[in-house]
Amino acid sequence: MTAPTIDDVRAAAGMLAGIAHRTPVLSSTRLNDQAGAEMFLKAENLQRMGAFKFRGAYNALSRLSEAQRARGVVAYSSGNHAQAVALSARLLGMPATIVMPHDAPAVKLAATRGYGATVVEYDRYTEDREAIGAAIAERDGLALIPPYNHLDVIAGQGTAALELLEDVPDLDALVVPLGGGGLLSGCAIAAHAVNPEIELFGVEPEAGDDGRQSLAAGHIVSIEAPRTIADGAQTLHLGELTFPIIQEHVGEILTASDADLVETMKLLAGTLKIVAEPTGCLGLAAVLANPDRFRGRRVGVILSGGNVALDRFAALIG
Amino acid sequence: MTAPTIDDVRAAAGMLAGIAHRTPVLSSTRLNDQAGAEMFLKAENLQRMGAFKFRGAYNALSRLSEAQRARGVVAYSSGNHAQAVALSARLLGMPATIVMPHDAPAVKLAATRGYGATVVEYDRYTEDREAIGAAIAERDGLALIPPYNHLDVIAGQGTAALELLEDVPDLDALVVPLGGGGLLSGCAIAAHAVNPEIELFGVEPEAGDDGRQSLAAGHIVSIEAPRTIADGAQTLHLGELTFPIIQEHVGEILTASDADLVETMKLLAGTLKIVAEPTGCLGLAAVLANPDRFRGRRVGVILSGGNVALDRFAALIG
Repeated sequence: MTAPTIDDVRAAAGMLAGIAHRTPVLSSTRLNDQAGAEMFLKAENLQRMGAFKFRGAYNALSRLSEAQRARGVVAYSSGNHAQAVALSARLLGMPATIVMPHDAPAVKLAATRGYGATVVEYDRYTEDREAIGAAIAERDGLALIPPYNHLDVIAGQGTAALELLEDVPDLDALVVPLGGGGLLSGCAIAAHAVNPEIELFGVEPEAGDDGRQSLAAGHIVSIEAPRTIADGAQTLHLGELTFPIIQEHVGEILTASDADLVETMKLLAGTLKIVAEPTGCLGLAAVLANPDRFRGRRVGVILSGGNVALDRFAALIG
Repeated sequence: MTAPTIDDVRAAAGMLAGIAHRTPVLSSTRLNDQAGAEMFLKAENLQRMGAFKFRGAYNALSRLSEAQRARGVVAYSSGNHAQAVALSARLLGMPATIVMPHDAPAVKLAATRGYGATVVEYDRYTEDREAIGAAIAERDGLALIPPYNHLDVIAGQGTAALELLEDVPDLDALVVPLGGGGLLSGCAIAAHAVNPEIELFGVEPEAGDDGRQSLAAGHIVSIEAPRTIADGAQTLHLGELTFPIIQEHVGEILTASDADLVETMKLLAGTLKIVAEPTGCLGLAAVLANPDRFRGRRVGVILSGGNVALDRFAALIG
């Protein structure tokens, strides 16, 4: 099996029932007027630990064997995946080790430790986090949980689109932020199982359009770490599992500039009254920047997360 | 009839169905840990035009006669009631005139005009807005829609508690911001009809506790305009309709300081990922400042609104 099926996504939804928040779908007449389209925003910034990542991490951890659960898990991440694995492990009573750069924001190190995880710090300029994670997994017999290139993670992320389509069945298009492709591929599987006519869009930061390049080239293209405020989409390449799913389901990859992301953060705070992190704004920013593609249509957008330090958020919207 | 009944609140819910947003009830493990209680936040900051005021205004306007609807309505407000009446009138195809101070924030004047209302400006230091509103109503045959002292407004506001209790039936306490008392009295009627055991709390700004004074005195006490960032609760006195309802249903009036409101705004933005205006934070701030009253209980809180200018919001949380 190289791709999850809709049954896997539905099974993940069952695993997450009563554990993950069923996040609201937000709408706004003023936003519709501005977009020239009927917009439905799946607010995963209101998810537990502040991002959709909880869905995939919890689903993956809950499917480990009893023996594996007793030994625990390891993950490497400087972002939302770290907190997602740490929180999921705590809820499931499993030990978790998270490999994080020692210069990660203090608030993120503290949040991960706050969920009870052991944090192993490394130097991001001289050390290789994948090697460290693999060595810890080997040494202690831990299950390594990658952030996106994992079938159970992909199936878990797909539950976001499944819920959105339960609430709003008749979407014409679905627009999803794209980093490593876990969210986009899972949502694509779920959306097309419900309605094969839905047009799927992925959205990357303008500075890091490896996904668009990959679709054009027909193979996974790697890039240098892009300079963008969308820190959750600074991935260097799609995954071997996510790329073929995206090839099969996704019509087009759009991009959003950092300036557009800031404007979208302001719009979401000022009009929708919610806090979104830059990466979480990718989908809506792309809809607003490409009105011709969406005019008059019913458009679902995944707002993927809201984890941005308050002082930075204040500086960006102020 | 001097007070709405639960049937009036249910009728208002029917009128608002498909028009008002059914706002989500938000919860957070981290918030529960901090409060020492199980918290359920009714997010009326995510309501249309950004506050619960839409419920009461729309309900009141929709109950006017056909002849009255053709002539239109007038309201005086520098805050959320202005936009609530303006938006409701637009949705119902009625002309609306809003009396606003000429030095009201430009963004609020623009928002009210943006909903299609005619704005009549006055000088708040030399002119009497109630007299201006009454004169316009008399001259043009318009219905005057007061912000809280009106049976249909009270019944409309009560739908917020009705929805919360449909989603979370077994609350021990309900905590509601208190200005003129429209929201608190409507929510009290709804909550006690569902479950007479629910303990009702109103929360005022520390600088303006006329409601607490009124309950203690047994009659409506008026105060000078209080200096507080909770601009939605700068009312000078309760209404003749709202006071007796509050007397009958509300056990205690708590207060929150401006400093506590700012801390609560930060908590809501940082942990819950939502934008609340200072007045909207009154309920949660009071729960956090009075842990002994709420420890171990299931506590509903109405987050009443999110209309704060972005630059001011950024300055307060930054």
